[in-house]
Amino acid sequence: IVRREVVRVITPGTIMDMNLIEEKSNNFLVCAALNADEWGLAALDVFTGDFQTARWNGREMAAFQAEIMRLAPKELLLHPSLANAYPELVSGWKKQGILVSEYPREGLTLEQAVTVLKRHFTVSSLDAFGCAHWPGAIVASAIALRYVQETQKANLRHISRLTSYTTEQFMRLDPATRRNLELTQTMREGSRKGSLLGVIDKTVTAMGGRLIKRWIEQPLTQVTEIHHRQRIVSALIDDGLLRQDVRAGLRSVYDLERLAGKVAYGSANGRDLLALATSLQALPEILDKLRQGPPILAEVAAQIDPLTAIASRIRETIVDEPPVSVRDGGIIRPGFHEEVDELREAAGSGKEWLAHLEQRERERTGIRSLKVGFNKVFGYYIEVTRAHMASVPEDYIRKQTLANGERYITPELKNYEEKILGAEEKLTQLEYRLFTELRSSIEEVLPQLQVTADQVAQLDVWASFAQVAVEQGYICPEIHDNSQISIQGGRHPVVEAHLGPGLFVPNDTAFSDDQTLLLITGPNMAGKSTYMRQVALIVLLAQVGAFVPAASASIGVVDRIFTRVGASDDLATGQSTFMVEMTEVAHILHHASSRSLVVLDEVGRGTSTYDGMAIAWAVAEAIQRLGAKSLFATHYHELVHLEETLPGVRCYNIAVRESGDDIAFLHQIRLGGVNKSYGIQVARLAGLPSMVINRAKEILSGLEQKDGKKAISIPS
Amino acid sequence: IVRREVVRVITPGTIMDMNLIEEKSNNFLVCAALNADEWGLAALDVFTGDFQTARWNGREMAAFQAEIMRLAPKELLLHPSLANAYPELVSGWKKQGILVSEYPREGLTLEQAVTVLKRHFTVSSLDAFGCAHWPGAIVASAIALRYVQETQKANLRHISRLTSYTTEQFMRLDPATRRNLELTQTMREGSRKGSLLGVIDKTVTAMGGRLIKRWIEQPLTQVTEIHHRQRIVSALIDDGLLRQDVRAGLRSVYDLERLAGKVAYGSANGRDLLALATSLQALPEILDKLRQGPPILAEVAAQIDPLTAIASRIRETIVDEPPVSVRDGGIIRPGFHEEVDELREAAGSGKEWLAHLEQRERERTGIRSLKVGFNKVFGYYIEVTRAHMASVPEDYIRKQTLANGERYITPELKNYEEKILGAEEKLTQLEYRLFTELRSSIEEVLPQLQVTADQVAQLDVWASFAQVAVEQGYICPEIHDNSQISIQGGRHPVVEAHLGPGLFVPNDTAFSDDQTLLLITGPNMAGKSTYMRQVALIVLLAQVGAFVPAASASIGVVDRIFTRVGASDDLATGQSTFMVEMTEVAHILHHASSRSLVVLDEVGRGTSTYDGMAIAWAVAEAIQRLGAKSLFATHYHELVHLEETLPGVRCYNIAVRESGDDIAFLHQIRLGGVNKSYGIQVARLAGLPSMVINRAKEILSGLEQKDGKKAISIPS
Repeated sequence: IVRREVVRVITPGTIMDMNLIEEKSNNFLVCAALNADEWGLAALDVFTGDFQTARWNGREMAAFQAEIMRLAPKELLLHPSLANAYPELVSGWKKQGILVSEYPREGLTLEQAVTVLKRHFTVSSLDAFGCAHWPGAIVASAIALRYVQETQKANLRHISRLTSYTTEQFMRLDPATRRNLELTQTMREGSRKGSLLGVIDKTVTAMGGRLIKRWIEQPLTQVTEIHHRQRIVSALIDDGLLRQDVRAGLRSVYDLERLAGKVAYGSANGRDLLALATSLQALPEILDKLRQGPPILAEVAAQIDPLTAIASRIRETIVDEPPVSVRDGGIIRPGFHEEVDELREAAGSGKEWLAHLEQRERERTGIRSLKVGFNKVFGYYIEVTRAHMASVPEDYIRKQTLANGERYITPELKNYEEKILGAEEKLTQLEYRLFTELRSSIEEVLPQLQVTADQVAQLDVWASFAQVAVEQGYICPEIHDNSQISIQGGRHPVVEAHLGPGLFVPNDTAFSDDQTLLLITGPNMAGKSTYMRQVALIVLLAQVGAFVPAASASIGVVDRIFTRVGASDDLATGQSTFMVEMTEVAHILHHASSRSLVVLDEVGRGTSTYDGMAIAWAVAEAIQRLGAKSLFATHYHELVHLEETLPGVRCYNIAVRESGDDIAFLHQIRLGGVNKSYGIQVARLAGLPSMVINRAKEILSGLEQKDGKKAISIPS
Repeated sequence: IVRREVVRVITPGTIMDMNLIEEKSNNFLVCAALNADEWGLAALDVFTGDFQTARWNGREMAAFQAEIMRLAPKELLLHPSLANAYPELVSGWKKQGILVSEYPREGLTLEQAVTVLKRHFTVSSLDAFGCAHWPGAIVASAIALRYVQETQKANLRHISRLTSYTTEQFMRLDPATRRNLELTQTMREGSRKGSLLGVIDKTVTAMGGRLIKRWIEQPLTQVTEIHHRQRIVSALIDDGLLRQDVRAGLRSVYDLERLAGKVAYGSANGRDLLALATSLQALPEILDKLRQGPPILAEVAAQIDPLTAIASRIRETIVDEPPVSVRDGGIIRPGFHEEVDELREAAGSGKEWLAHLEQRERERTGIRSLKVGFNKVFGYYIEVTRAHMASVPEDYIRKQTLANGERYITPELKNYEEKILGAEEKLTQLEYRLFTELRSSIEEVLPQLQVTADQVAQLDVWASFAQVAVEQGYICPEIHDNSQISIQGGRHPVVEAHLGPGLFVPNDTAFSDDQTLLLITGPNMAGKSTYMRQVALIVLLAQVGAFVPAASASIGVVDRIFTRVGASDDLATGQSTFMVEMTEVAHILHHASSRSLVVLDEVGRGTSTYDGMAIAWAVAEAIQRLGAKSLFATHYHELVHLEETLPGVRCYNIAVRESGDDIAFLHQIRLGGVNKSYGIQVARLAGLPSMVINRAKEILSGLEQKDGKKAISIPS
């Protein structure tokens, strides 16, 4: 009877099975607490050891919530007091399909939390982590750590750092905007392909893949930080050969973060350690190249410790092609350990003797079909078919009767068997011990290994930005703190990649103090939505520190991007399309500032003509008052009159060339409003029967005659 | 060295791993061919053996394609000639995420195809399958069979029938409609919960679960067939006790279809056969109950063969709790086979002797800590710690030295060991042989087993319809071939289930020869979409043969249901929302007949005011001309004037009670148009700042004054 005990508890947030998790995403366990009127959040990737914490003051619940959505946790643990005070938050998360639990049952005081963290990190103060005065963050972090300690029942040495951040460092993106802009996945299929990430991600390591995703979701707001990234990317663009070498070198680097995790969990096998060695050994050459580049790249190189001692120690200890199992031997390199070599010799010579035995016994007995075999129950045996039973010598001892033969042993055979098996058993035990010693020695340097992994990931992302810039012809935007945005020849990165080079029609954009609201009219299909999203994506890429698809660009950093596009019903919760739309618009009006970028597509479309027009009109006025940089697309041509009455409003339209009944979309944005939307032409393109089309034209001309196309004027 | 050969090739369409496939859906391998100007299609579920084929003439490509989408294949094989002639079809399917291949490389002639089918089914003509004169269907079916023969490398005896059908037997539902009506999954999350199936599926067997899904997706069009289902459901409603007994009995029935598949594949183990026996043994009691019911249920009972001989044979042969493995013995019931019992006795007595040995040797040697153990390398041994080495008797033979002890054998010990291990080896071989004999005997009756499975599945679905009808208060609709539809007190089955009993406001619907187009106006949030979908779902349920959520209903069967609701962009393929909308409308205008039911929600919403209004107007006129029964919701209040000029058009609206600025939705449909849409009130509910709301009101009243609310009249 084997005594079983719980070795590890697997929960959605703490899955360690490589096959169950996505390589290019973090799998975060997220914990949240509310302590001393402060929201705190901790995110822990148990595989990579990545551990972060953030805080918000009590009034910033929306920002706190948006951050949880960004992290897309599989599992969310809440301090019981938070869960009790905000049941509506809990039910909202559950609706999103997140597994929410309260933990620990009895709660955790701030003092207990501090103790948990200090003990794990063996520090006397939390100052080094930058969160010593963040009560909410401390409690959330302690919850995460305690939960993982309890479920994983393993050494957690790879969780060696806690990084604290605030979302003010980053551009705020609400979940709707992240979804609408298709940053990391498409709206329709949720696939990476077709998203911004799908175009921009040319990273070659798994760590780089995770980091670029995080950067795309967290654009910066500090000009100096953005400039730092830009300088490195520029250097990597300027020296194409250097960039190729760096990227080629990085291709040999395995997932250092997850390998470190496996070492900490004691689940790393010989192949994992070899992958670690291969990865580390690829670094010196990369660093050499960097050092030969401009000073900024030499600085990058100086941050990366290739841990050469560890790499050579692994190489010396382990064979070139170790088996998957660490308990069955065959893992230690010949020449590394004297006793290993001796035992191998002993087992080997026994096997050699056995190999000769068959030949010798055939000659001695004259039985040509005599065979030596092995099975797990009886060990080595000599098998003779029934036909030759008479020739079996006296010294054979019968062990087993088969359908058409017998199996025998001899004392000599068993003697050698014992030698072989005995040596093999000792050998596997010894090899296992040597292997675990090696693994433990790597555990000692986990913190350094993680820093290296981090730096390598950043290098990979910078090289990816540079590579995309070169391949797609992106330029370095000028970043500043003014309120102006000016883009010449901007393109939509994803649509451009889809169309192929040279086919996308570039367009300009300009925001300044006296041009804050761009009112865009033009027919369907002309590309209004594409244009507006393109502007948002260029600004976002610029603040990520990447180059942008434009001829030139000057970007004053924005604090948030808001979007209200598309339409979707939510019948089950009883929300009509229009209600969803209005709720999102209300959110924007309540939260946008003069430093925000706002994209509004067809506000008011979901209700009747006059109601919709009145709402769109009033919303445009409100946005103009806020002074936010706004792109406002509308079918209500009547709104073009706002340009005359409101400062900062400028009308644009997307050009269409008409010839007879046919229309050609030129995809060119230009100043001025239009009063024609070509809806009927589009309907014809879609295949509506011509009888219906003709009738629609007739009705339209009737409507227009009646209206007399007279200008609508509203008292302002 | 073990010689390996390919045992089975696993492809998405031929997965046999229970863990990888959904229990309540079929996993179809679908094949298609075009032969002699006829589209042919075959769908094969390799697990259950379900094999169906269908045909369409060359002009009916759309119907053929819709059927492929309905089947939602994981894998689609195309005859090379079809793939070459219609590359756009291939790329369309690939975009849907279907794995498409051409097979076989060299194609297949009709003659070859006929031979493949005749040989597999060992028949001399295909007449019995009803597809003897369907060239496309024959080729498609032969492709499926050949592919599975080649990849599975197994006996395929459970594929014992080929069922042929045409889609004319069924109501046509295009993919957009199936999606819009959320028949089997929700649009947002793709979950079963929240779909029609989620409400209506009260089946208790996996087979019933698959069949009810198929029925929901294939409503009938023949009045007599619908009546047949209704009569059985009615009988099961009338006798509640009988229904409870039947459903309770069915709960003990496992997935007979998949168990049959495992038997055919030779992968059924002892537990599977026991599950089969348990299932079959549950049937006689169910049949008894049915026979005591009205004649129609006795007829149902007469169709079901409980295969009692097979069930008892399994019970006699196999123990009550067989192990997972079929090769390690312990599977044959004591008393079933003399030699099995003898061998067990032999192995058992040896073990008993061993159990006493430890005690005896301790007494003999005086070593208290002496132990008898077993390991795979040395077999049984006696272990003595180093401290007692001096007391070891002479007859002990040393086998292995440990860190703090020695292991010994004695000749007597080895003698018993041999007896035990020898008997055990013989025993496991014999048990395995007896088990496979049993499994082969079940293979002989696979065709009968499949018929039973089929009938049980149908019974389960009927009982489910009856159960839902009772729980939710559904009634039996009157079904006929007239063109009239009349529903009193109709409810939306899914929304009603979500709200809970009594909270949904029922509404009437009436279509007749002089009332074919119902023009519905009313504010957002009032429930226009819910009302229209409710009508479509009631008609669909009625034609499935189920009862419907209404006070009473009289339904003239429709040939197709079309819907155009919601909106979604497809930016990547360059389709704007409006283009998608117009394409769907064009599809409806080209395909709807006077026997169709059409649901149109907010046609023209995606373009500018006058364009949209003109298109909606012209589309309404076209639909009216077709004479299709239509529900037409619009925000263009101007369209209510159509009632005055066009026969068959009738205006309805959904009632709202206003008091001051507040509005209450009464969810009550009533005759007449409205001229107010309450968009601004809804915007206020959504949280738009009151300043914006007030301004919108001001603008609206300006617009209305200007317009003077005068009637629009268009020359007809």
